[in-house]
Amino acid sequence: MSVRGFGVFDDGAGARVGWREGDRVVDLAAAGFGDVFARPSLNPFLALGRPTWEEALELIDALPGDAPSVALGDSEARLPFEVADYVDFYSSIEHATNLGRLFRPGSEPLLPNWRRLPVGYHGRAGTVVVSGTDVVRPSGQTRPAGDGRPPFGPTQRLDIELELGFVVGTGSRLGDRIAPGAFADHVFGVVLVNDWSARDIQAWEYQPLGPFLGKSFATSISAWVTPLALLEPFRVAGPEQIPAPLAYLAGGDDWALDLDLSVELNGAPISRTRARDVYWTMPQQLAHATVNGASTRTGDLMATGTISGSDPGTFGSLIELTWNGARPLTLADGRERTFLEDGDTVVLRGGAGDLELGEVAGTIVPQ
Amino acid sequence: MSVRGFGVFDDGAGARVGWREGDRVVDLAAAGFGDVFARPSLNPFLALGRPTWEEALELIDALPGDAPSVALGDSEARLPFEVADYVDFYSSIEHATNLGRLFRPGSEPLLPNWRRLPVGYHGRAGTVVVSGTDVVRPSGQTRPAGDGRPPFGPTQRLDIELELGFVVGTGSRLGDRIAPGAFADHVFGVVLVNDWSARDIQAWEYQPLGPFLGKSFATSISAWVTPLALLEPFRVAGPEQIPAPLAYLAGGDDWALDLDLSVELNGAPISRTRARDVYWTMPQQLAHATVNGASTRTGDLMATGTISGSDPGTFGSLIELTWNGARPLTLADGRERTFLEDGDTVVLRGGAGDLELGEVAGTIVPQ
Repeated sequence: MSVRGFGVFDDGAGARVGWREGDRVVDLAAAGFGDVFARPSLNPFLALGRPTWEEALELIDALPGDAPSVALGDSEARLPFEVADYVDFYSSIEHATNLGRLFRPGSEPLLPNWRRLPVGYHGRAGTVVVSGTDVVRPSGQTRPAGDGRPPFGPTQRLDIELELGFVVGTGSRLGDRIAPGAFADHVFGVVLVNDWSARDIQAWEYQPLGPFLGKSFATSISAWVTPLALLEPFRVAGPEQIPAPLAYLAGGDDWALDLDLSVELNGAPISRTRARDVYWTMPQQLAHATVNGASTRTGDLMATGTISGSDPGTFGSLIELTWNGARPLTLADGRERTFLEDGDTVVLRGGAGDLELGEVAGTIVPQ
Repeated sequence: MSVRGFGVFDDGAGARVGWREGDRVVDLAAAGFGDVFARPSLNPFLALGRPTWEEALELIDALPGDAPSVALGDSEARLPFEVADYVDFYSSIEHATNLGRLFRPGSEPLLPNWRRLPVGYHGRAGTVVVSGTDVVRPSGQTRPAGDGRPPFGPTQRLDIELELGFVVGTGSRLGDRIAPGAFADHVFGVVLVNDWSARDIQAWEYQPLGPFLGKSFATSISAWVTPLALLEPFRVAGPEQIPAPLAYLAGGDDWALDLDLSVELNGAPISRTRARDVYWTMPQQLAHATVNGASTRTGDLMATGTISGSDPGTFGSLIELTWNGARPLTLADGRERTFLEDGDTVVLRGGAGDLELGEVAGTIVPQ
């Protein structure tokens, strides 16, 4: 398995677009691909549209062995694209069910809207960071006992969320919709996403308008964007949807991705799961996000929400893996973990067959 | 009263920064202010920081009467700045109380967190539009009767939200906080904001992650940004806050703004209210948004949330003005209104003394 994808690297001669192929990064501008690759962001290339993306991939397939490149270790990866808007969905039925069970015990775990639409919200685009960026433990208010003064301090319940995200290449105008069938005309590729979450901050703040500071301190993404075209061999039918979705969400159900995903904590796997089980597909997410006529832009990032399977070893967050802290994990060194401690390193990985997505690594540092 | 502020205008010779003074727009680049004003966005100027903003205002005060300018009517206003992230707060205690009464009758209208922190969430930056842009009536799912199929179609409960927003000029780094006292070092100025809302779409989608498609179709802002420095004469103490806020929110309570605000529907006023009654001040909003270490960027827009006073004639949304449709307004032409109809035009205005903020106008058009 090796990572293949577009990103931005800097080997000391300035940040520019590269193509990662295993442990090498091809310098696309130096290889004659054009000035659009001499930029410190993928956005200008993404904006050129699908025919150009396909042409670039054909040229990459024909690259000579001596194309100008640098060793991965001799360069630093940068945020691959400027994030326009960041939307986070909640599309794994197992994850939504688990959280419903944890937070509303005794009632139906899925809310009535969940099977009717891909629930989502906007996150903070400006704090999306590239894999490898340290994550500063955030401080905030948490729920007080009774009517007392809310405690303030570093979060004690710092969590991860294993997600996949797609990146919009060519946007859409205000008032227009993107049908599920037009997904691949607009979307350039995918990244792994770790939507770091401070559960105690979130629990106190989130009524009635949703998550804010419990999420906005950092969201980590892969340094390398995997083009959709490379994922075609792994397209499969998504899970059956009951009841049948409304007309604007119909179709696009052949865009589930048969990718294996995993979470490592301090070097040892703590979860293995599958992307194909996500209930709402990416084309459905994009169709929903635009059905009200909202425009989209180059660099829009939309993520699945935490991806969990049905067994405890397949959950995509610590709040599920430890069942809200009640069942600590035992790490390789014999120590226990409920939520993250300073110095912990989390790595998300994903891939299928010979294709690996860019990993997402992050280490927790104190404030 | 006359509008004074920075914006972007196009008289056919290309979009560039202008200074609006009543019914004229001074062409700042042509007036020798520098190349940063020849750009189609305020962002490069905003990024230069407070000393440069102050210097520009001094030069503007000294402008000769024959400085190069165009008549307002001979030019088109553009979106004045590129919006980085858009955050919307919920900072009017009267508004939050009204919505609590409407949606949770019989229980305490304010949720326990409301007096402890400025509740807020992220909106869609890419659909912030300039005053004068038509608003396409959005479609979406709404709550079904019982377990049935959700109706889908154009919103029947299209509403406005009268708000003030502040614009970040110089941002802050990941991991840093902006104390209330540093507000004016980071924030360039304010705009009026109409956060259009589809109440029926919002009511069905918003649990548990907050508003999404019910808000993301359009948010209108003034074409002209009023620099903070011009608002200094109207700074007043904010409302008393009980209980006292936590330390990180203390201070900044001398940054309430004594501005009169109004809403016009089809040319006739339907609400008049005051900005000074907003419970959480703008410096407190910014301090809260960054207390978890979230970075800020040039162009970040943070809005107050709907501003309502205590009397029915001072409410900032139709859902409050008509008490969820139960008490229709009678317009000047004798017709009744609960929510907006196609062809309706809403104009938000604000000002104090001789200073007027840029108005926010929008007309509803069918899809």
